[in-house]
Amino acid sequence: MSHVLALSGGVGGAKLAAGLAAVVPPEDLTIAVNTGDDFEHLGLTICPDLDSVTYALAGLNDTERGWGVRDESWQAMAMLRELDAPSWFNLGDRDLGLHLARSWRLRGGETLSQATAALTGALGLAARIVPMSDDPVRTQVETDAGWLDFQTYFVAEQCRPPVRAIRFAGAEMARPSPMLSTALSRPDLAAIILCPSNPWLSVDPFLAMPELRAALEDRPVPLVAVSPLVGGAALKGPLAKLMAELGIPVTNFSIAEHYNGLLDHIVIDQTDADDAEGLRAAGLCVTVAGTVMRDAEDRERLARVALSAARIETG
Amino acid sequence: MSHVLALSGGVGGAKLAAGLAAVVPPEDLTIAVNTGDDFEHLGLTICPDLDSVTYALAGLNDTERGWGVRDESWQAMAMLRELDAPSWFNLGDRDLGLHLARSWRLRGGETLSQATAALTGALGLAARIVPMSDDPVRTQVETDAGWLDFQTYFVAEQCRPPVRAIRFAGAEMARPSPMLSTALSRPDLAAIILCPSNPWLSVDPFLAMPELRAALEDRPVPLVAVSPLVGGAALKGPLAKLMAELGIPVTNFSIAEHYNGLLDHIVIDQTDADDAEGLRAAGLCVTVAGTVMRDAEDRERLARVALSAARIETG
Repeated sequence: MSHVLALSGGVGGAKLAAGLAAVVPPEDLTIAVNTGDDFEHLGLTICPDLDSVTYALAGLNDTERGWGVRDESWQAMAMLRELDAPSWFNLGDRDLGLHLARSWRLRGGETLSQATAALTGALGLAARIVPMSDDPVRTQVETDAGWLDFQTYFVAEQCRPPVRAIRFAGAEMARPSPMLSTALSRPDLAAIILCPSNPWLSVDPFLAMPELRAALEDRPVPLVAVSPLVGGAALKGPLAKLMAELGIPVTNFSIAEHYNGLLDHIVIDQTDADDAEGLRAAGLCVTVAGTVMRDAEDRERLARVALSAARIETG
Repeated sequence: MSHVLALSGGVGGAKLAAGLAAVVPPEDLTIAVNTGDDFEHLGLTICPDLDSVTYALAGLNDTERGWGVRDESWQAMAMLRELDAPSWFNLGDRDLGLHLARSWRLRGGETLSQATAALTGALGLAARIVPMSDDPVRTQVETDAGWLDFQTYFVAEQCRPPVRAIRFAGAEMARPSPMLSTALSRPDLAAIILCPSNPWLSVDPFLAMPELRAALEDRPVPLVAVSPLVGGAALKGPLAKLMAELGIPVTNFSIAEHYNGLLDHIVIDQTDADDAEGLRAAGLCVTVAGTVMRDAEDRERLARVALSAARIETG
């Protein structure tokens, strides 16, 4: 089989990443993950999107809560709260074990790529999960209160402050991680898939790296995006609210326009089938499918749809 | 009432410290705690003796297991193990919350004294629990494998390697913590009590600080030691094994000789009553009492015995 490169953010993207991992042999798949949400907290380096993808692929994700680890407990958190330490970011006990292990590796001199490979390997994951970059890129949003670090906006402020602008500190100087660069330059690369993640918050950090943006613009293979919108709304997270605040209509046309020049094919949800004609008129290939992923079957089905949109046969 | 200064190590000392805290008004008691066992692990600053004393006074200690926090869980630890991260030092989830909170304060620029005051205050402890020093002192033991950090010897090696020598790295340059110095120079200081901790491992780190040793030698008040030996053996920990390895007879005479010049009064266990005569002949005051502390009543009783040995009246 030929090689597939997926670019993913957190929870929503992680679902499709898990679907791809279920239908593509591990040696034929590279999943590059947004690191713009990463941050330092209580001495730990926390990489929420890498964790979401890792947990989803390891079957460790809590599907009920929608984030974090299943069978989680919150004893350390309760103690932190009792001790008046910062408790705005929820750290489950099992999750904390992962943050401690990663931070220990990073302090020991490993790159984030190396640490991620070690952690996912220890969890028995054959799939290649790689950070988008080993250089620090930090997503920040401008609000009435000034520029906020992403997790302050996303978790502490629960996305309440209206967003005026978004920036990715460090991205200009950041280089794609070695495994992402390798995937992009493989002669057998057959498709690049943008998972249904927030284009402005989870995919733009990738595109803000000049070398990656140039590579995607020069791509020799189809680039397929799975739209994160369903019925003109976002399933989860601040996407629709954010688009509105940025003055952008919450439609698939806005998604397509945002990826202008990068996109060959867009997969849209069946409830938005009416958008297909307009999108095709704008020069895109369009696949209409069920994009809501409730279970493993949904995830694999959508993965096959995305691969098929890129003209890749799956067994 | 007049002021009492207690010097304590970990578990055994913490029991008497808790007894003292139960019978002495908080404003009249300073509990200074050994920091020679402190170490850095997984990015956390861990202070086992401060933690033992804190947990004992807060009633959070696990009396069954004999160390750590009650109602503890081990989920972070299980994840660390699964991820091939260092797991030789057991970190309970609640305990981890405390280490994270302290490390956060230290990274923020607080001294260990300030961090300890904040943490014990948040737990509602009125007693003054202070580190022996805000400067790093690190206990190390010499074995056939060379010099080992204390926790490597104590936890990773479970005290198996015979000890040839002990040193306290940093102690020569370390100064007593501000609150310990304050307690020592209080005009109303009435007694100094050495809790039943390991003299070589838990009390010597104090004595290795030149300024503290000098202050104890010049003390204007009685210094009372509660012997950690019961029936010519140690209740817990490596004390008896260590004494044997250092060529020291496991008796109260060795304890008294070790504290030579510092001690006015020694409290020994009733099973060692025969030692009293010899100790008195050596010029010490001796109290024979039950020194095994199984419950709060035992702890308070022994606290009263020690205070009475220092001629302090308790209600």
